Amino acid sequence: MRAIVAHQAKDLRIDELENVKPGPGEVLLQMAIGGICGSDLHYYNHGGFGPVKLKQPMILGHEVSGHVAELGAGVTGIRIGELVSVLPSRPCGDCKYCQEGLRNHCLNMRFYGSAMPYPHIQGAFSEQLVVDAVQCVNAEGLSAGEAAMAEPLSVALHATRRAGEILGKKVLITGSGPIGALCIQAARRAGAAEIVVTDLATNALDFARKVGADKVVNMADQPQGLADYSADKGYFDVHFECSGSAPALVAGMAALRPRGVIMQLGIGGDMEVPMIMLTAKELDLRGSFRFHEEFAFAVELMQKGLIEVKPLISHTLPLTDALIAFETANDRSQAMKTQIAFS
Amino acid sequence: MRAIVAHQAKDLRIDELENVKPGPGEVLLQMAIGGICGSDLHYYNHGGFGPVKLKQPMILGHEVSGHVAELGAGVTGIRIGELVSVLPSRPCGDCKYCQEGLRNHCLNMRFYGSAMPYPHIQGAFSEQLVVDAVQCVNAEGLSAGEAAMAEPLSVALHATRRAGEILGKKVLITGSGPIGALCIQAARRAGAAEIVVTDLATNALDFARKVGADKVVNMADQPQGLADYSADKGYFDVHFECSGSAPALVAGMAALRPRGVIMQLGIGGDMEVPMIMLTAKELDLRGSFRFHEEFAFAVELMQKGLIEVKPLISHTLPLTDALIAFETANDRSQAMKTQIAFS
Amino acid sequence: MRAIVAHQAKDLRIDELENVKPGPGEVLLQMAIGGICGSDLHYYNHGGFGPVKLKQPMILGHEVSGHVAELGAGVTGIRIGELVSVLPSRPCGDCKYCQEGLRNHCLNMRFYGSAMPYPHIQGAFSEQLVVDAVQCVNAEGLSAGEAAMAEPLSVALHATRRAGEILGKKVLITGSGPIGALCIQAARRAGAAEIVVTDLATNALDFARKVGADKVVNMADQPQGLADYSADKGYFDVHFECSGSAPALVAGMAALRPRGVIMQLGIGGDMEVPMIMLTAKELDLRGSFRFHEEFAFAVELMQKGLIEVKPLISHTLPLTDALIAFETANDRSQAMKTQIAFS
Amino acid sequence: MRAIVAHQAKDLRIDELENVKPGPGEVLLQMAIGGICGSDLHYYNHGGFGPVKLKQPMILGHEVSGHVAELGAGVTGIRIGELVSVLPSRPCGDCKYCQEGLRNHCLNMRFYGSAMPYPHIQGAFSEQLVVDAVQCVNAEGLSAGEAAMAEPLSVALHATRRAGEILGKKVLITGSGPIGALCIQAARRAGAAEIVVTDLATNALDFARKVGADKVVNMADQPQGLADYSADKGYFDVHFECSGSAPALVAGMAALRPRGVIMQLGIGGDMEVPMIMLTAKELDLRGSFRFHEEFAFAVELMQKGLIEVKPLISHTLPLTDALIAFETANDRSQAMKTQIAFS
Repeated sequence: MRAIVAHQAKDLRIDELENVKPGPGEVLLQMAIGGICGSDLHYYNHGGFGPVKLKQPMILGHEVSGHVAELGAGVTGIRIGELVSVLPSRPCGDCKYCQEGLRNHCLNMRFYGSAMPYPHIQGAFSEQLVVDAVQCVNAEGLSAGEAAMAEPLSVALHATRRAGEILGKKVLITGSGPIGALCIQAARRAGAAEIVVTDLATNALDFARKVGADKVVNMADQPQGLADYSADKGYFDVHFECSGSAPALVAGMAALRPRGVIMQLGIGGDMEVPMIMLTAKELDLRGSFRFHEEFAFAVELMQKGLIEVKPLISHTLPLTDALIAFETANDRSQAMKTQIAFS
Repeated sequence: MRAIVAHQAKDLRIDELENVKPGPGEVLLQMAIGGICGSDLHYYNHGGFGPVKLKQPMILGHEVSGHVAELGAGVTGIRIGELVSVLPSRPCGDCKYCQEGLRNHCLNMRFYGSAMPYPHIQGAFSEQLVVDAVQCVNAEGLSAGEAAMAEPLSVALHATRRAGEILGKKVLITGSGPIGALCIQAARRAGAAEIVVTDLATNALDFARKVGADKVVNMADQPQGLADYSADKGYFDVHFECSGSAPALVAGMAALRPRGVIMQLGIGGDMEVPMIMLTAKELDLRGSFRFHEEFAFAVELMQKGLIEVKPLISHTLPLTDALIAFETANDRSQAMKTQIAFS
Repeated sequence: MRAIVAHQAKDLRIDELENVKPGPGEVLLQMAIGGICGSDLHYYNHGGFGPVKLKQPMILGHEVSGHVAELGAGVTGIRIGELVSVLPSRPCGDCKYCQEGLRNHCLNMRFYGSAMPYPHIQGAFSEQLVVDAVQCVNAEGLSAGEAAMAEPLSVALHATRRAGEILGKKVLITGSGPIGALCIQAARRAGAAEIVVTDLATNALDFARKVGADKVVNMADQPQGLADYSADKGYFDVHFECSGSAPALVAGMAALRPRGVIMQLGIGGDMEVPMIMLTAKELDLRGSFRFHEEFAFAVELMQKGLIEVKPLISHTLPLTDALIAFETANDRSQAMKTQIAFS
Repeated sequence: MRAIVAHQAKDLRIDELENVKPGPGEVLLQMAIGGICGSDLHYYNHGGFGPVKLKQPMILGHEVSGHVAELGAGVTGIRIGELVSVLPSRPCGDCKYCQEGLRNHCLNMRFYGSAMPYPHIQGAFSEQLVVDAVQCVNAEGLSAGEAAMAEPLSVALHATRRAGEILGKKVLITGSGPIGALCIQAARRAGAAEIVVTDLATNALDFARKVGADKVVNMADQPQGLADYSADKGYFDVHFECSGSAPALVAGMAALRPRGVIMQLGIGGDMEVPMIMLTAKELDLRGSFRFHEEFAFAVELMQKGLIEVKPLISHTLPLTDALIAFETANDRSQAMKTQIAFS
């Protein structure tokens, strides 16, 4: 079988690997769709990010769906042929954080396609994949492409849950890439009354509008586009910072009302934070990292039509065009979510 | 001008009253629509409920909308002719609870149509009404009937906010009258993944399904209809108890998972609560009472089409048919929300 | 070795059992002290409570301390001879509640001395006990009697954490047995500004005063002793209901201010709850059940002198006087906490 | 009467002012003690801080106590001669934040000794002061010096409440000036199991130890003094950042466990924040600003001996030595809290 392997920066290959067989409690999947995430692009473009660096070839990918091909011994409740979203979060279950229910902070996490530990945790962009039965979430009723969106949607749902109260609230989202766009949808589903979105790219803002933004502001054209929201100490209750850019964070803080909450999802480097503003308005800057139990919610909300991710899938290319797919994903002026079809 | 006045149990009259004029900071409304609430029915049917008793004639009504007819001195930001939802909550702003932001617990509350203090607080079912400017919430884009639904919707939104996390959760609603049905919509808007509704009346459950219940259970036909949800210590995360009936509360508690939250909205008498179950599952039984800041959210969510209350308005009758309207509202097998048109 | 075994109601025996040896990861303890809890008394007096009934002989006890006598293979970080508080909570670690961090709701809990599953979970009142290494919490600096208080103190700490904000707040505690008295201490340590305690027994209230109550009210002598606290919708922020008696719950609810929190720890039968009061004041009635991570906190807070439990230990009797110990514990006019010395 | 007036940086004078008389609802105080706060020092040393600049002479001071000298018309419940702590927070009660109960964010706040609005809000360092009756909190049983500590203690209590759960938790405090030292005491009173304090000054750390720190680390001597706490993703649950220094913030973040909370009280300039760490550990960086309802708690907790501030009062000088007092307060190697006696 074939897999998409990053050997080093800009050295992406479709490698031939040994076929695999499911052991007890495991399931063999014939992979259907894999979505390219920002971290996949970092490995592809730069061989990593910050302290996280490729030290050996690594299969990329963690946003995947597949069809059940074979059941290992003792697996029940799963049917051959069914479409599943694959939970890429594999905590150990035993460390102190797992025991406290903070599974996204597992000390021994094996998240697909991560170069942080060595040997690296191989990813899921392959034609076949053996997974634990508990990683399979039945995705009946969804397309394979939607099923593969469960992962990034979970990121947005996790951040939305951590943000606290959303019902009836005013929400600002800075950065309208795939995560920003999913935050629009998650915040709307959680009852946001008003959603304003900023970005520097027209294309991204068009997507934002399509998936539910009430208003979009192109900060490249209107650098002061949020200034009016700062009157009377601010307007927004919640800010999802999805750009990883310090100016977006600062502009958002100025537009937040006292006790406002900033969910930091965008990952950039260090950021200069105006601490007097944070202190005087008693703002609350919270990190949000991956997800765990939200994965099942994500599939269920899509299945019930309560969140509609199809408009975000801008491109789907076959495995043989993996390189084109990565280059397409690199071009924010064109792509929202680029996916690869494995079969 | 005419108003709907309860003189005593089963003695409802359309009385002729003096016209009124707005003072400084006030607004005169030509009333449009008034919805009949359960408490109005209690005054009509029984002259009150529990310790709350009519001691003098009282204008009923607190779910109302109207058109702005005249502005008192100093009022700005409101246009003659505009449709407004009328906030019936009038806290004093000075007592200790108001100062803490708990305005629905104001020690000097003057909520429309309340027989609790004496002299009673007169209600809003009249052809004209003078209100404070801050009570007017612009309802542009809504029908007058929808605008009058802002009040009961606020009750549901307040309970939903007090319930805590809803996004992706399993919700049980016992009692599918207007408040139960609005809780379905509020919980859905807040992101509930699954909503199961119980009632004893087929008609009410049909409404429940129409406004978004995933499943309905007629407890009259299937007294054990929730039993399966008790496996593994329970299934639901949140229970909105809107029936005021002890068996519904107890059945819901059994079906709630550990740490589940029960929002008690239904008002019955005392209830026998299985305290060992409450303790052993660490359930959380919370009262919810009226609302305040949710009123503005309610109008906004309706205006944006994020909550759709029209299906709940089952009957609209003219002022001259007020008595028929009250009798219609009494008949749960027919009516969901009955409204009276004042003009 | 000997153990205290309940054969049926009022049939308590000191039985001779086989000695035990620690397996890998286990520790053999020479037991020091065991405190008699209310549930032990229920088994002794009535053979159980509610649906929980003795169906076979069961060793009682779950409030215990001991000295390390032998280490199983692979155990590190524990020294022969050291005094340990024994965590009696043994969740499975695998069920859905364990995975979510709600270990006190484990579907397969093996809590010492519980007749709920069959075969029963044997208790810890024995001269020797083999425990998992993770159950041992070093209790250096404490007396063996204090070390055995870690368990009931954990119950109080768990309830206090679940109560939410305590710092600077007004606290009411109804029922001043051992759990009520420990709630006094936990609430004080969490920063309660004022603590009022009620009971029907003079002796219990004397203890309450000794461990920190600002004021005590004997409800037998002054049935209206809390009435003044009901003015202006109520006075207390938090109510720890430790009596299991409905009149105490109702009196407390009347004395709670709007949004007040009732922690229900006392276990009685069903209780008639005034739901209109709960709804109108938006009270929050929360169950609290056992504990888990609080056990380590409990030992640490005692070791640092931040909570002082010694005054609560009213009687200590040797194993051979176990029957006298249980009868002593039965007499609330004499005993606060009765403990049994195993060596 | 005389008052301490900052005319500009390093131009502090004892000016003679007109005597004042209490109007209706007001109280005339003969001032007893005033404590010098960091913001007073900023006005004295630099004429302000950040964008806050002296534009006219301003009486300094907001940490004050006094004795009641005269009652205005209609004032009840206050006795001539009684010692009171003076609440310096004077919100308008009408703006949107006041109505929501967020009185420390009042849009029209008149906090004593603030150069932010123009004309400035005059402070309370004067021999006589007319205050609203509601600003007087009876301080019976306290010394006048302790009564004047209610203000900074309220700052610490407010931050502690905003930090969430403290009972049984591990707390890090960076910066052990008066606010840091009061956070030690507030955190201990709220149940912190372990408190570690860092500073660069030996004297400050000695104070920290005296008021309850379990361990102190001099970061000047041991720049890596917190490094061991970073193992397994971190150790502390809560970090009170009272230094306003970026290295302290960053060292604290590294030592916090996932989901840890940083309360930012120290006011420095902008700070470079390691956002990847904040995101990956899901840290929560919260501003804390002043207080409101905590003021009454502060007095009550001191009166009951639950918080003991006396050890923090390092110097007390007469009004005539005001300049010496400010210079003393400037010398962190000597002073913890410097107070001025007005009578």
